[in-house]
Amino acid sequence: MSPKITTELLKQLRQVMKNPKFVQEPVQAYIVPSGDAHQSEYIAPCDCRRAFISGFDGSAGTAIVTEQHAAMWTDGRYFLQAAHQMDNNWTLMKMGLKDTPTQEDWLVSVLPEGSKVGVDPFIIPADQWKRMSKVLRSAGHDLVPVKENLIDTIWTDCPQRPCKPLITLDLSYTGVSWRDKIVALRSKMAERKVMWFVVTALDEVAWLFNLRGSDVEYNPVFFAYAVIGMNTIRLFIDGDRMMDTPVREHLQLDSTLEPEFKIQVMPYGSILSELQAVGAGLSPKEKVWLSDKASYALTEAIPKAYRYLTPYTPICIAKAVKNAAETEGMRRAHIKDAVALCELFNWLEKEVPKGTVTEIIAADKAEEFRSQQKDFVELSFATISSTGPNGAIIHYKPVPETNRTLSVNEIYLLDSGAQYKDGTTDVTRTMHFGTPSAYEKECFTYVLKGHIAVSAAIFPNGTKGHLLDSFARSALWDCGLDYLHGTGHGVGSFLNVHEGPCGISYKTFADEPLEAGMIVSDEPGYYEDGSFGIRIENVVLVIPAETKYNFKNRGSLTFEPLTLVPIQTKMIDVNLLTEKE
Amino acid sequence: MSPKITTELLKQLRQVMKNPKFVQEPVQAYIVPSGDAHQSEYIAPCDCRRAFISGFDGSAGTAIVTEQHAAMWTDGRYFLQAAHQMDNNWTLMKMGLKDTPTQEDWLVSVLPEGSKVGVDPFIIPADQWKRMSKVLRSAGHDLVPVKENLIDTIWTDCPQRPCKPLITLDLSYTGVSWRDKIVALRSKMAERKVMWFVVTALDEVAWLFNLRGSDVEYNPVFFAYAVIGMNTIRLFIDGDRMMDTPVREHLQLDSTLEPEFKIQVMPYGSILSELQAVGAGLSPKEKVWLSDKASYALTEAIPKAYRYLTPYTPICIAKAVKNAAETEGMRRAHIKDAVALCELFNWLEKEVPKGTVTEIIAADKAEEFRSQQKDFVELSFATISSTGPNGAIIHYKPVPETNRTLSVNEIYLLDSGAQYKDGTTDVTRTMHFGTPSAYEKECFTYVLKGHIAVSAAIFPNGTKGHLLDSFARSALWDCGLDYLHGTGHGVGSFLNVHEGPCGISYKTFADEPLEAGMIVSDEPGYYEDGSFGIRIENVVLVIPAETKYNFKNRGSLTFEPLTLVPIQTKMIDVNLLTEKE
Repeated sequence: MSPKITTELLKQLRQVMKNPKFVQEPVQAYIVPSGDAHQSEYIAPCDCRRAFISGFDGSAGTAIVTEQHAAMWTDGRYFLQAAHQMDNNWTLMKMGLKDTPTQEDWLVSVLPEGSKVGVDPFIIPADQWKRMSKVLRSAGHDLVPVKENLIDTIWTDCPQRPCKPLITLDLSYTGVSWRDKIVALRSKMAERKVMWFVVTALDEVAWLFNLRGSDVEYNPVFFAYAVIGMNTIRLFIDGDRMMDTPVREHLQLDSTLEPEFKIQVMPYGSILSELQAVGAGLSPKEKVWLSDKASYALTEAIPKAYRYLTPYTPICIAKAVKNAAETEGMRRAHIKDAVALCELFNWLEKEVPKGTVTEIIAADKAEEFRSQQKDFVELSFATISSTGPNGAIIHYKPVPETNRTLSVNEIYLLDSGAQYKDGTTDVTRTMHFGTPSAYEKECFTYVLKGHIAVSAAIFPNGTKGHLLDSFARSALWDCGLDYLHGTGHGVGSFLNVHEGPCGISYKTFADEPLEAGMIVSDEPGYYEDGSFGIRIENVVLVIPAETKYNFKNRGSLTFEPLTLVPIQTKMIDVNLLTEKE
Repeated sequence: MSPKITTELLKQLRQVMKNPKFVQEPVQAYIVPSGDAHQSEYIAPCDCRRAFISGFDGSAGTAIVTEQHAAMWTDGRYFLQAAHQMDNNWTLMKMGLKDTPTQEDWLVSVLPEGSKVGVDPFIIPADQWKRMSKVLRSAGHDLVPVKENLIDTIWTDCPQRPCKPLITLDLSYTGVSWRDKIVALRSKMAERKVMWFVVTALDEVAWLFNLRGSDVEYNPVFFAYAVIGMNTIRLFIDGDRMMDTPVREHLQLDSTLEPEFKIQVMPYGSILSELQAVGAGLSPKEKVWLSDKASYALTEAIPKAYRYLTPYTPICIAKAVKNAAETEGMRRAHIKDAVALCELFNWLEKEVPKGTVTEIIAADKAEEFRSQQKDFVELSFATISSTGPNGAIIHYKPVPETNRTLSVNEIYLLDSGAQYKDGTTDVTRTMHFGTPSAYEKECFTYVLKGHIAVSAAIFPNGTKGHLLDSFARSALWDCGLDYLHGTGHGVGSFLNVHEGPCGISYKTFADEPLEAGMIVSDEPGYYEDGSFGIRIENVVLVIPAETKYNFKNRGSLTFEPLTLVPIQTKMIDVNLLTEKE
């Protein structure tokens, strides 16, 4: 792929950064974060502002443009991809490497004295605003909200915000009705003595109301906010989709209900003014609960003294612990997914030697087999179908310019998954259609040992996932190898393929302890730039473990793999495995 | 041991909490932290205020007294000890357990509306003040500084602050002169654009000036502060010890020196007023660097806009990486220490079967053998000499009331160490003088496996110690066992036996990455309340590791044990070990 030429765009952006039509005072730097107004990881085309301005379209990255510089922060998954997609106007800031400055420190080092740094207050999370603002202020600069998004002012052919029909999920899929979820939420609110809860994350709105959408590719969510009071429910959503009879019946919009379960439907765009009205009408001790990752704009709508901010919302935590209906659904989805991939592998084994299968063809074929399965909805993320050196681009997605033909001489890495109405899958397998080299087998086996070490780990109740991360790396570390990404992420139930509040990572983010019923991925890897990539990923369910002893009656946990896709045995150097492995 | 009866003391404290002679307004709660004005872990008798008011004298704990309640927060090492030492006036708050409230949350739950919570501003670290103050304020209460320490007002027989002679260390011990340390510090200050650095930790003052003292038992430090400017050096220290000729020569107090190396000696008690004068005279951009753990009082002396706070000071980080002279000294100290302990073990093997050796006698004997070694100064902490059930009290120290006789029927745990002029030691061995049971051997072997897993771990440069903690627990976790303390702490070089900024713990404190030259302990354990305790501890040096490959040229690290004390082989169930172990 060739990089996007951004010279003209950056010139335009630098002009609007000084244009009094859009900014009260000129801003010397403008931040373009990754997310949308809901701090989503996967975003709709209309929200791909960072990709528009830079060309880099990976799922994580923050662009900052100053009068002199344009810089992009991204993590190890995307170093190669970002370097490929961006032109020379851009400097790549490799997060996680020792010498890479933080965005704030970099700004302080390049900005002239007393600078203004602009950002869209709907896009930047409140916690990030706070952190950046503090560092900038202490260096004599100011972080300022720019109400009009400056990228949108220069993005002449920006697509429209999607507004697609909704899917209703009955109890057989969700296990719990939306009414019961509201009741449970209100009881959590009462525990913390808060009167209001603002639902800002799209997957939290979807989960709470047992609805799904398709406004964002791969993520079955829809653009909406909700504000839950102790006696009121407000849902902020646009479009005629609320006129749809099954949706109206599902939400009981036309039924006679107790007032506290009556859903008031309001326009999506009215959230800020409605929240400001809530904020203005609070009496002392009436707190409003928000995620600390909610946008700065919405957070500011509530006077500081009334805010109750937590890193994870009660919905996020409840959503992570799957109930029996959801777990059974996930099991069914993984059986179907394994059938589809077995069909694919069988097909690949026959077709690859003919030299006609490209990365794109293989990805399409995987989707074709999956789409034949019951209750298939869509893929859960863009398929990573990568062979040879492309495998080392951790979150690679084949495009015509890079599309490589699978062969009997190169390692092939397939990281793919689907949304079924009963569950979400995400699986990576690495395979060879000829004879892998001893070195390739050696590396694969270290990765496999790490995968097994996590999957078979037994650990006490209350353990946080980040304490398991080193188990995945130990075999690689012993030989001086490693991988520059985390080991696992939470997985939604017919929801986002990445979800909080748990995960397995060397980054000690404030993860919540693992609990029985949580579902995470286990995906160590090894990547050699220019040569190959290896990753082995299962989705695993946290389950109680039987142990010989039971210290302090705490109980233990372990994992049960939900993924049933075979691992290619010819990639394994069995001599490197222990008996137990 | 019987608990301290505190009814009368608490009554007196509650009276002074309302006495206008000591408090501007009555305080409804009073916090008694563990530390002294330097946030030391080990403190002088005059600073043992928490032990005085509660009876609990472990090294970590915070007492809070309200009109109705008296509560003590401490960690897993001290649950049993605190429960033994405190009377029924006290509630034990077991930190690290899921249901234990934080101090702030507990205060909010018990205080009447609009309460004042008092604390000595010289004792509470600024970061802790900030955290508590925020939570209390948001619940309608106020954290207030009480200038006169309220414990001191009721502590009629409080001992005097020690002021003992100093030891000077020459280059053969320190490797670097104090002048060169000042030069290096100023270059770090210049990098961060700060004009002043305030040295508040006692071991940092001692390290910086290549001096040692004995004001605090076990820690070769002396009460002092230092304020380093780009052109000035101020040392705040009391007593006629500065009249001592070797000290004057060492510090070149009477020599003609460039002004920037001339040390101004000032009274210890003048630090606050001097710092306030520095704070008042700052011009814009003149920052003052302090640890964020410096006391609230000293931190407040510098106007907020001029403070530069970091979790670890440049001295803390430089001190942690031992140079060749220090490493060689540590090696010598550990050889001597092993000789002393081998003599002790030989003596114990002969004497224990006679039934005449108590925990105290064994501890004294260990000290006697150590004191015969060259350059022995004192012990590095109170010897933990514990047999049978006493071994389960993690930081046990034998006293006449608990003193148990060693026998051929019980496990004996000895955690001890010494200060030699060339280095500090800290070693734990667990042994049996008869025949250990299969279960005792099983538990010991799991602990040994964890000890080996850390000691033999290979990990990339830049890895933080907390990522290694789970290696120490894995064998225990597999059987449902665990231990409620961290796995390792930094060790000083003829300095504090516990030092930052590195460590190995499941608590993800903001530790700095491990670097070659750092020295930490490796000490997993297993404890069964009422039965026995097992711990195996070596002091290990971080060294470069040779690996087969070298990912991204990052280089790898591993550990070299400095401790040379044998591990009793009869405690090992060899069948549970792998070939490599």
